[in-house]
Amino acid sequence: MGMVGGGKDAFIGAVHRIAAQIDGQIELVCGAFSSNVQRSIGSGHALYLPPERCYEDYQQMLTQEAALPASERMDFVAIVTPNHMHFPVAKAALEHGFHVLSDKPATLNLNEALALKEIVEKTGQLYGLTHTYNGYPMVKQAREMIAEGKIGKVVKVVVEYSQGWLADKNSEASKQASWRLDPAKSGVSCCMGDIGVHAANLAEYITGQKIDSICAELSSVIEGRTLDDDGTVLLKFAQGTHGVLLASQISIGEENNLNIRIYGDKASVSWVQQEPNSLWLKFNDQPSQLIRSGVGNFSNTVSATMRTPAGHPEGYLEAFANIYQAFASQIRNCNSSSNAHFDVPGIDEAIRGMAFIENVVQASQSDLKWHKLAIN
Amino acid sequence: MGMVGGGKDAFIGAVHRIAAQIDGQIELVCGAFSSNVQRSIGSGHALYLPPERCYEDYQQMLTQEAALPASERMDFVAIVTPNHMHFPVAKAALEHGFHVLSDKPATLNLNEALALKEIVEKTGQLYGLTHTYNGYPMVKQAREMIAEGKIGKVVKVVVEYSQGWLADKNSEASKQASWRLDPAKSGVSCCMGDIGVHAANLAEYITGQKIDSICAELSSVIEGRTLDDDGTVLLKFAQGTHGVLLASQISIGEENNLNIRIYGDKASVSWVQQEPNSLWLKFNDQPSQLIRSGVGNFSNTVSATMRTPAGHPEGYLEAFANIYQAFASQIRNCNSSSNAHFDVPGIDEAIRGMAFIENVVQASQSDLKWHKLAIN
Amino acid sequence: MGMVGGGKDAFIGAVHRIAAQIDGQIELVCGAFSSNVQRSIGSGHALYLPPERCYEDYQQMLTQEAALPASERMDFVAIVTPNHMHFPVAKAALEHGFHVLSDKPATLNLNEALALKEIVEKTGQLYGLTHTYNGYPMVKQAREMIAEGKIGKVVKVVVEYSQGWLADKNSEASKQASWRLDPAKSGVSCCMGDIGVHAANLAEYITGQKIDSICAELSSVIEGRTLDDDGTVLLKFAQGTHGVLLASQISIGEENNLNIRIYGDKASVSWVQQEPNSLWLKFNDQPSQLIRSGVGNFSNTVSATMRTPAGHPEGYLEAFANIYQAFASQIRNCNSSSNAHFDVPGIDEAIRGMAFIENVVQASQSDLKWHKLAIN
Amino acid sequence: MGMVGGGKDAFIGAVHRIAAQIDGQIELVCGAFSSNVQRSIGSGHALYLPPERCYEDYQQMLTQEAALPASERMDFVAIVTPNHMHFPVAKAALEHGFHVLSDKPATLNLNEALALKEIVEKTGQLYGLTHTYNGYPMVKQAREMIAEGKIGKVVKVVVEYSQGWLADKNSEASKQASWRLDPAKSGVSCCMGDIGVHAANLAEYITGQKIDSICAELSSVIEGRTLDDDGTVLLKFAQGTHGVLLASQISIGEENNLNIRIYGDKASVSWVQQEPNSLWLKFNDQPSQLIRSGVGNFSNTVSATMRTPAGHPEGYLEAFANIYQAFASQIRNCNSSSNAHFDVPGIDEAIRGMAFIENVVQASQSDLKWHKLAIN
Repeated sequence: MGMVGGGKDAFIGAVHRIAAQIDGQIELVCGAFSSNVQRSIGSGHALYLPPERCYEDYQQMLTQEAALPASERMDFVAIVTPNHMHFPVAKAALEHGFHVLSDKPATLNLNEALALKEIVEKTGQLYGLTHTYNGYPMVKQAREMIAEGKIGKVVKVVVEYSQGWLADKNSEASKQASWRLDPAKSGVSCCMGDIGVHAANLAEYITGQKIDSICAELSSVIEGRTLDDDGTVLLKFAQGTHGVLLASQISIGEENNLNIRIYGDKASVSWVQQEPNSLWLKFNDQPSQLIRSGVGNFSNTVSATMRTPAGHPEGYLEAFANIYQAFASQIRNCNSSSNAHFDVPGIDEAIRGMAFIENVVQASQSDLKWHKLAIN
Repeated sequence: MGMVGGGKDAFIGAVHRIAAQIDGQIELVCGAFSSNVQRSIGSGHALYLPPERCYEDYQQMLTQEAALPASERMDFVAIVTPNHMHFPVAKAALEHGFHVLSDKPATLNLNEALALKEIVEKTGQLYGLTHTYNGYPMVKQAREMIAEGKIGKVVKVVVEYSQGWLADKNSEASKQASWRLDPAKSGVSCCMGDIGVHAANLAEYITGQKIDSICAELSSVIEGRTLDDDGTVLLKFAQGTHGVLLASQISIGEENNLNIRIYGDKASVSWVQQEPNSLWLKFNDQPSQLIRSGVGNFSNTVSATMRTPAGHPEGYLEAFANIYQAFASQIRNCNSSSNAHFDVPGIDEAIRGMAFIENVVQASQSDLKWHKLAIN
Repeated sequence: MGMVGGGKDAFIGAVHRIAAQIDGQIELVCGAFSSNVQRSIGSGHALYLPPERCYEDYQQMLTQEAALPASERMDFVAIVTPNHMHFPVAKAALEHGFHVLSDKPATLNLNEALALKEIVEKTGQLYGLTHTYNGYPMVKQAREMIAEGKIGKVVKVVVEYSQGWLADKNSEASKQASWRLDPAKSGVSCCMGDIGVHAANLAEYITGQKIDSICAELSSVIEGRTLDDDGTVLLKFAQGTHGVLLASQISIGEENNLNIRIYGDKASVSWVQQEPNSLWLKFNDQPSQLIRSGVGNFSNTVSATMRTPAGHPEGYLEAFANIYQAFASQIRNCNSSSNAHFDVPGIDEAIRGMAFIENVVQASQSDLKWHKLAIN
Repeated sequence: MGMVGGGKDAFIGAVHRIAAQIDGQIELVCGAFSSNVQRSIGSGHALYLPPERCYEDYQQMLTQEAALPASERMDFVAIVTPNHMHFPVAKAALEHGFHVLSDKPATLNLNEALALKEIVEKTGQLYGLTHTYNGYPMVKQAREMIAEGKIGKVVKVVVEYSQGWLADKNSEASKQASWRLDPAKSGVSCCMGDIGVHAANLAEYITGQKIDSICAELSSVIEGRTLDDDGTVLLKFAQGTHGVLLASQISIGEENNLNIRIYGDKASVSWVQQEPNSLWLKFNDQPSQLIRSGVGNFSNTVSATMRTPAGHPEGYLEAFANIYQAFASQIRNCNSSSNAHFDVPGIDEAIRGMAFIENVVQASQSDLKWHKLAIN
């Protein structure tokens, strides 16, 4: 693969590289790691890339890689830039004939995501979106159990993604914070765009239901911010299921507290990202069950995402790697005539995510309570 | 004390008696334990009361006790009936010259609560309300820490009270469920009136702030119910603090999951009722602190609510007893000229609770998002 | 009941009184609360006892109570003194025709315990021992499950009772510490006598197996102590089951960490006193089960020890009260011809406890590894 | 690096490869993955190795790699075979001029380990031992805090490593189990050799103290086994600190429960491998502190072992990778004249580990309680 963005000091770039490399199936072969030419090339050198494949910018990378023989050029592009560059890089990569695996949110706004779908369809290349948290084995297990009816009809969803790192006014100076709080680079939302969209995706992924209507209230808790740093969204799903989504970046003491509870009319499941190898199945009238990664039997789909035996904890990097592995499998498969399904968030999730962000921002500004989630 | 309601098989009656007796300061001396005369008297006998103080109904109890010499008659009345009887019994007791300690919600509706305040003021008797969860030592500790500025300015509150026991249609047949789902006995709300009001009270008690505006969405998840069994309320407090209140009685697998998190601009505190002897104080940039009942120093106010050394868990009954103890101290003090403060929820909390319930129901029926919490 | 010891400031005296009173079945009617006459009488007054039943010492109490008409005198004596007084008070009380409920360890040494058994048998009075931790509902549930074969054949037991409060040299000045570290009042052991014996009793109670052989190592970690403040005992049970018992009073940061794990050849159970309403049942090849007080079905025996519904935590005082309740039932029953079994630790547990303490101290002083647990 | 052992289906081989690759600093370039020639070569192919570097056996690998130009040949050999092959492969590799990173226990017996030390010293090559659990950031943090005196003088250590997977007689058929239970391949101990030695190493690593004397009791709980599957060892460290080490492979319901508590005379620390990103610091008289990976400040040494921000859990594979990274740094450094210290368990830990295993087995067979830990 080739990487755009994610130079040294960019947290998420290193994470993507580890996720790609961990299973020995994907090799980083080139990159344009920064909008700064020197840093871009320097990062490539530091990563032991051959000098001729440390590119100055993504345009150069796409042009020169496309000119290489098929057996030598990169197979896909991983996009790990700030949000505003996701669309132009993805568009160019697809149009140069490369598959794309992009960080989320997919684009700067919904219109770009809709345009991207047309490009994906036109070019026939694969498009994947790193909704990392889908990659956890216990998330997949929850999804399977719900699909199999283990908790009965889903009646309520509570999903939360709380962090505290943006609580400090001083934190804004950091590289991580500065672009996220800048509408030109981040889009119409900070908190919902950065993490609320993960929570919405997780709720839809696990339940298999789509959010239909929302009531939203966003806040800029820290003075002087133009974008939200906290918010709550009431949800109605298409099947009538109710839900609540809480997201925050100013909740001091919260590290990366993504958690979800899905209540059915027979049982409930709950999962907490900071203890990712555990999944609770609870009842009203019998003991709760703690499902642990590696203990007992799992479907092939779930088993394939576990690397260690019980009690040898896997974490965030392995979940991320599962997204990469699935995307690699999808690429391997795409020249064949198979109709195999690969569990990779794609262009439809990209559109739903951008729609969620934009609709929440609009609903938050409205005096009316409920709003249909519009995708167009 | 004398008790109205709470005959055999009534869960909460036994709880009140234990809470009253546990510290050897309050003695049950009489009662009218049921609207059924035989059951009322039978319950009294089973509780070893002298036959002449096992009354047929509360009117008889009040009349006959009032006729006893001051040194012999009961000091106060504990009301543990279904909601619709709270007001008439409290009114009669106060007017017969007895202090009243009532289960919550205080009355059937806000108007009754406002009327009750006039009676309390006119009679000069004491009125207490058993918002049990205020009685936990770690709740009082949290309140003190926030008042002392340990977490800085409060910026966000998340409070939740989730249960699952009403998820089952069959559960409706139980004595506990049937009156709670009957508007004539329960009032305009089931879930918010039974448990949501505890959560609202807890949030106001710990933060010392008052809820000012609400956005509410209630549901009747189980088909055929006229009252809510689930709901979410977005909160704005008078100081501008944001909050979210979740309440549910249909969340299968939740036992009695009352929990609260208060985020400040320096730190946060969190408490979970099912692990009541622990209180978390969390920071962004230093280790979290786990404050444990009995470990280290506490104020006299907090210490006075602990009965055992560290690691000898106290629970719900002891928290309940702390409300009774504080009320007993208030009674002992009320003939003196002291201005001592006693930490007992009273008539003002009664009014705020009923206002919360009624406003939430109205807000839930509105198409508009935000509503001022009206008390009049 | 009448109480010997447990005057004001004696932690365990207040605990016994709460445990006795909480269920409204037992009334404190008299006491000799201290070896200091003034304090003894003053404590009685503070507890609202009639002046004529606030006794100067236990001899006076036994003589005068025995002289009252049967319907007026106390039913039993609760002994809550330091260890060296357990035997003389119990002996005198039994010989005056009173049942006895004694704090543990039963006596100052094994010989006294053996002598006490003869007195119990001769007088025909009831004798109970407050091994509090047996009173927890989840402990009884574990015992039942093991008896029913739910975990298969028991193969290993790990039981631990760790505290930290005696880690501080300065702590020795406290009333609690001073007599425990004094061989004349405490006996041959501090740590094993005070808490190790609870752990041994718990292991035998839950498994239904008897300790047969031991290998012991005791330490006096804090300089200058003549008695142990820490120790480990390897166990072999009569059926061949292996075990480990850890006890410590100098493990800083441990509050009252009594916990036990019993491994069978099909499953295991584990329980932690500081989270007493939870019991784990674990397997190798299926999800763990978290059994929670109040959730699902329990036997009548276990249900009878629970006072609140699920999620309303009960704790140490309620467990203690369960011992008192069972003893009260045993007394009520003892004039009848019934052969009902009452789940109260008695004189046999008293002897086993004293034998455990003495054998462990001897084994610790030996160069040989294994020693038969001798009772004679 | 080149790998010996660890072909397909060998759990630990895949773990080593991930650990080596995850940071992009180490490349697998060749291997002899199995004692079965076909499987050895097939495994290499499956790992995308060039055919000429998929070797038939380790002798061939060492000979042919040594014949390659220095810039092309592997830098070191990773040994992931069953125990009996550790010594011959390590010896041959060192003597062919390759550094060695070996799985534990280092050898089949103590004599081999002592011989290995001579070879290491003679050849001047580096030798590392994958005591994985040392690689966790919170373990290193605990070690630092103790070295800095944060808990005062260490007075007691409790370390446990419990698993349940060998509880089932049927489990013996598995590849993992069969060699571990075979003295010819595993050595004199199963449980102590496989996991007890990890626990002993962890205790010495964190405390910086050496085990001096032991009292041991090993068992073969499952009938028909010649090697131990469970055991307890009482410890005395050279400084007089007491300790207890529990190890088990037949404790049903335990996954990979390695945990350690170190009690000092000021505070204590505790760590649980299954929740590896948390470290507790506890006191008697102030709130406990929960130190979390990524929250607050850490030394450079500790920070260098963390890859993700707070709340993005790292696990077993990352801990393993930290051992590999440290070994890679050591190799890079070894041609320079630097005296930098690298935190890699080495030949001395190899010898201590083998001595621990052999001494424990001997002590277990003795009737005497205490035995000096002999290394010779």
